[in-house]
Amino acid sequence: MSSSYGNALRITLFGQSHSPAVGVTVEGLPAGFAVDMEKLRRFTARRAPGKNDWSTPRREADEPEFLSGLVGNVTCGAPLTAIIRNTNTRSGDYAAFAERPRPGHADFTAEMKFGGFQDRAGGGHFSGRLTAPLCIAGGICLQLLEKEGITIRARIASIGSIRDDSPFTCPVDPEGFPASDPAAAERMLALIREAREAGDSVGGVIECTAEGLPEGLGDPMFDGMENRIAAIVFGIPAVKGVEFGAGFRAAELRGSENNDPFVLRDGRIVTETNHCGGILGGLTTGMPLTFRAAVKPTPSIAKTQRTVDMKRVAPAELAVTGRHDPCIVPRAVPVIEAAAAVAIYDAYLQDLRR
Amino acid sequence: MSSSYGNALRITLFGQSHSPAVGVTVEGLPAGFAVDMEKLRRFTARRAPGKNDWSTPRREADEPEFLSGLVGNVTCGAPLTAIIRNTNTRSGDYAAFAERPRPGHADFTAEMKFGGFQDRAGGGHFSGRLTAPLCIAGGICLQLLEKEGITIRARIASIGSIRDDSPFTCPVDPEGFPASDPAAAERMLALIREAREAGDSVGGVIECTAEGLPEGLGDPMFDGMENRIAAIVFGIPAVKGVEFGAGFRAAELRGSENNDPFVLRDGRIVTETNHCGGILGGLTTGMPLTFRAAVKPTPSIAKTQRTVDMKRVAPAELAVTGRHDPCIVPRAVPVIEAAAAVAIYDAYLQDLRR
Amino acid sequence: MSSSYGNALRITLFGQSHSPAVGVTVEGLPAGFAVDMEKLRRFTARRAPGKNDWSTPRREADEPEFLSGLVGNVTCGAPLTAIIRNTNTRSGDYAAFAERPRPGHADFTAEMKFGGFQDRAGGGHFSGRLTAPLCIAGGICLQLLEKEGITIRARIASIGSIRDDSPFTCPVDPEGFPASDPAAAERMLALIREAREAGDSVGGVIECTAEGLPEGLGDPMFDGMENRIAAIVFGIPAVKGVEFGAGFRAAELRGSENNDPFVLRDGRIVTETNHCGGILGGLTTGMPLTFRAAVKPTPSIAKTQRTVDMKRVAPAELAVTGRHDPCIVPRAVPVIEAAAAVAIYDAYLQDLRR
Amino acid sequence: MSSSYGNALRITLFGQSHSPAVGVTVEGLPAGFAVDMEKLRRFTARRAPGKNDWSTPRREADEPEFLSGLVGNVTCGAPLTAIIRNTNTRSGDYAAFAERPRPGHADFTAEMKFGGFQDRAGGGHFSGRLTAPLCIAGGICLQLLEKEGITIRARIASIGSIRDDSPFTCPVDPEGFPASDPAAAERMLALIREAREAGDSVGGVIECTAEGLPEGLGDPMFDGMENRIAAIVFGIPAVKGVEFGAGFRAAELRGSENNDPFVLRDGRIVTETNHCGGILGGLTTGMPLTFRAAVKPTPSIAKTQRTVDMKRVAPAELAVTGRHDPCIVPRAVPVIEAAAAVAIYDAYLQDLRR
Repeated sequence: MSSSYGNALRITLFGQSHSPAVGVTVEGLPAGFAVDMEKLRRFTARRAPGKNDWSTPRREADEPEFLSGLVGNVTCGAPLTAIIRNTNTRSGDYAAFAERPRPGHADFTAEMKFGGFQDRAGGGHFSGRLTAPLCIAGGICLQLLEKEGITIRARIASIGSIRDDSPFTCPVDPEGFPASDPAAAERMLALIREAREAGDSVGGVIECTAEGLPEGLGDPMFDGMENRIAAIVFGIPAVKGVEFGAGFRAAELRGSENNDPFVLRDGRIVTETNHCGGILGGLTTGMPLTFRAAVKPTPSIAKTQRTVDMKRVAPAELAVTGRHDPCIVPRAVPVIEAAAAVAIYDAYLQDLRR
Repeated sequence: MSSSYGNALRITLFGQSHSPAVGVTVEGLPAGFAVDMEKLRRFTARRAPGKNDWSTPRREADEPEFLSGLVGNVTCGAPLTAIIRNTNTRSGDYAAFAERPRPGHADFTAEMKFGGFQDRAGGGHFSGRLTAPLCIAGGICLQLLEKEGITIRARIASIGSIRDDSPFTCPVDPEGFPASDPAAAERMLALIREAREAGDSVGGVIECTAEGLPEGLGDPMFDGMENRIAAIVFGIPAVKGVEFGAGFRAAELRGSENNDPFVLRDGRIVTETNHCGGILGGLTTGMPLTFRAAVKPTPSIAKTQRTVDMKRVAPAELAVTGRHDPCIVPRAVPVIEAAAAVAIYDAYLQDLRR
Repeated sequence: MSSSYGNALRITLFGQSHSPAVGVTVEGLPAGFAVDMEKLRRFTARRAPGKNDWSTPRREADEPEFLSGLVGNVTCGAPLTAIIRNTNTRSGDYAAFAERPRPGHADFTAEMKFGGFQDRAGGGHFSGRLTAPLCIAGGICLQLLEKEGITIRARIASIGSIRDDSPFTCPVDPEGFPASDPAAAERMLALIREAREAGDSVGGVIECTAEGLPEGLGDPMFDGMENRIAAIVFGIPAVKGVEFGAGFRAAELRGSENNDPFVLRDGRIVTETNHCGGILGGLTTGMPLTFRAAVKPTPSIAKTQRTVDMKRVAPAELAVTGRHDPCIVPRAVPVIEAAAAVAIYDAYLQDLRR
Repeated sequence: MSSSYGNALRITLFGQSHSPAVGVTVEGLPAGFAVDMEKLRRFTARRAPGKNDWSTPRREADEPEFLSGLVGNVTCGAPLTAIIRNTNTRSGDYAAFAERPRPGHADFTAEMKFGGFQDRAGGGHFSGRLTAPLCIAGGICLQLLEKEGITIRARIASIGSIRDDSPFTCPVDPEGFPASDPAAAERMLALIREAREAGDSVGGVIECTAEGLPEGLGDPMFDGMENRIAAIVFGIPAVKGVEFGAGFRAAELRGSENNDPFVLRDGRIVTETNHCGGILGGLTTGMPLTFRAAVKPTPSIAKTQRTVDMKRVAPAELAVTGRHDPCIVPRAVPVIEAAAAVAIYDAYLQDLRR
């Protein structure tokens, strides 16, 4: 189903931007795991808007309420459900979009699919707000993976055409702007400010790495690590491309350049380079699993755009007012980590079958 | 499961490179469809090796045998199974790879996952040979989609750094080298020849478009068209990146540049540009659905490569002899079409629920 | 996953008896359906306890809160989530059962599966309380089916050895005791009273029929109507047997007795008898689909029972005090209808693929 | 999908009675298991027809060919596919049933579902012949379970109204008539002979037990052991009822009679009785898991039956000539074992997640 993901671990997201709540049910969590609630709160706070000048001034009280699956803070083996109340429901901001679909949004396609019955307020089920419960599920999976020695980190690789070329091993301030190179970060922030002042928006690329993975995780063919990760990451609104390791750049290399030689390091078999992004034949090599996701510029912009009036079947214009991120990329960084964590922990649970 | 894909339509691939046969079972085909066997043969022939100088001289008798699901050539509603016999089984070519894993192949990761019990001959279940039954399933879906007015075409966008920049609307000789611009094709072929002579290989990018789609096909979130297509396309060996519409390039644009304005054309609502690749919120816009897949250079190369001797836990060298494609990209073009057809027809069948 | 059911329509139940809430998420509901909330309330009230002398005096405020999937009372195509708050949480009644598992309950098996981390209070996720959200999902499906001319009704066929032999076409007072024959109902109620007074409990059989089904609904083999219905009905606590049509009695008949002759009635092909319960080859015949479910006697009884002390690994005794139904069968009648409705509507949605 | 079953282990059956072959694909088998082919042959032979006087004189060469998933006789982790050729294809025996549907068969319902395109020959995909590949999959699972100390045995509990009341612990001659009590067996065989001579058929009940199961196997709610087993067993043609432990008889008991007291035996917690059939809350108790399946009398009988002529929409008569089992129950015994083995091994593999 469209709002569920996973096999051994299965998440189901529900809620619309302006319905009473958004939430997630997670099935398949092992019993007996004590969720570190303060750590989870810090993780989901990284996604929360309104706390700095690069995101929307909307403030969301993203405090989750756990309805099931826990005894105290310990998983009990039953489905875990957490919800976040939407305080800002049924607003009138979106009434017009029924008639004049916003370019770059799902207004038009949802109208076609659901025959006008979709929840139009705030983008409904298509809203980026649904990434809040995804972060709850992913934040718990990150804690479970950490217990197994597996860590996942993402950062901004580029905003517009400004790139952060520092090695991925460089640290990122987890609560600040998620780029490694301070100079690049400065220029990215300037670009975002400039876009906002111009009533416009910018996109970017996020890179993510998972370390500490065992060798041979994943499955051949359609349940390879690439398939699994792409299948969840493309569920994050605005993601339009996913590549692993050298990705599209690998297509320009020779085999002799792209192949990663196997070498011995401390008695362990590793690859000297990691163009394959830690995945061969869908299975992990034990090297860092790396991927990059392209995030399109926020479609909600103050600039006037051309659209159509669906009722009168005539050309029309539209400017998206209200509070919107001029760049969604920084807030999407923990969402990418959350999505990767769900995909990898699901593969990890399935692998125990061996 | 790792070798199955789909919901309303479900394909299951089986077989290893050197097992008695490879094959596919397709569940969910509507009853009463007459498969055009000659058309299917022509389609799968585009993937077959050995028929020209850019592919391996191995010849495969890719004649499928239909074991079930048909009465004559008409689908009967039961699962359709087709197999292709492997004439060239249990060869000794691959014995050494158990001990010295080939860089860029799944030899090492499969050893880790399956504890040495994987079928090593010819890459086993990881072999590109499994794309032959995928083309049978996809070829039938292409015919079913065509009946609904939906056509899918792929072509080479680049080989190495040589690009075909002609508009995608230009025709491609379906039985020849699948690029549109003859001059670019000439240079691509020269590059492939050069790589082969150097004992090396090259990769490339394939672009694919689906036209004639209704609006609103697909589902929100994890069953969006991007998720569905990526989840199958990453199952094709050597694919390391997938992007839709402007893809990674969209990350460099402003919102005002990337958003596709809605306009009226012949009384129909369309988008003026198509940076979104015909997909908004996971649902089709009715414009061409376009995506690109990055194919890494064939890992099997004649050049000497560094690896390890797993038995002696010592460095080793290896040169992959035998007959291999210096560039898999041309033969992967129909495979991309097949994968897209399966994903889109599955979404199409599910959409009848509305 | 263990708490999810369905394909085109998918329900996920969550919650424990004493967690903050129990609830259900329903994916795949068509957009644009106006839920009759008053009708739904009347349906779920049939399952609610505490309203008469044959059920537990516990009162539950089973008022559902809809968190998502609706705009007003109209489905919007996004997952519908409804929750019911548990007012009576974290009670101490159940602490002892950790050490002395109740016969007939999941205390022991859950302890083995979840290593002691299961939620013990009130039976946790195993509680009959989870049938409340199942009735919400089923109640909506009943309304959707009714719109298609399909009606589902269940009634008590027997309590203990007292049978209601009146034809199934006889009406049942939907808000009263769900048996057709007043004399049988009287004797059943007397038996239940007697069991309660003896500190004991009784079981029974429920029969269910679905009328107005099209011919050919369902699928061959593992997605036949029998498989689908059994797979959900065995999820209702205390159900230990399911049979279709003549069921176990068919095993005693000759083929010439059991086969249902095809005859013409009003120009339509029907079967003269209906020993097959309206299902041949997993597909509906268009005749009433009938099945029966065996419900074991409530395991919670006041009588002293033998068990073990798991801590001291020694024999022990136990009497289940508190408020419990001496017979769960009457309240299970709408639950059976709900389960059948979910299974049949799921099959119905999938069938639109044809 | 209708012809697939399972989660961690997944089987997909394909083929029609008269298509070139029937077969099965099994995904999720652990790598490195050596299939005992002779043992498998002996197991599938128990289902084969034509070898005695209680079954059809048709002889099938049920020799499976393994197309994939093995290296020699050892599983390699890739999907295992086995096929059995149909030597007796495209016979004309069944042409008439298109027009005059056989009572008790799927001729009519399949016509309605597949619009006349179903494979009519030999019952097509609905044929009991599909249980041959199910026995291959199940036979391998039986061997895998045996390695874990789990054994599954079925036997005839009754034919018509003749019951075998000997304790289930009594042995059954695995290659002979599968009842324990020689006197009962004699009377059953006489009844079958008598039915055949009368041009009629008889049904019966099969009981099955699985021993050596760990405690806590299975999952709550919809993936309980009852749900899992019923979902596959109802896929066996002619099964119309499934009950666990005391089953329908439990509905007549008091709680104090039906509850199984926990007691200590050799330091292990067991239940004194086993009315629950070794399952509480969907999870195994560690006691024998027992269930019974009702098998209807073979619908193919020589006696003249009433039906309709679908072309002329008029009453008609029909006698099913040809070779048919007067009683399918003895041959269904290994099929029940196979189905139970698939269901239990799937649950077993999923349980390793703990």
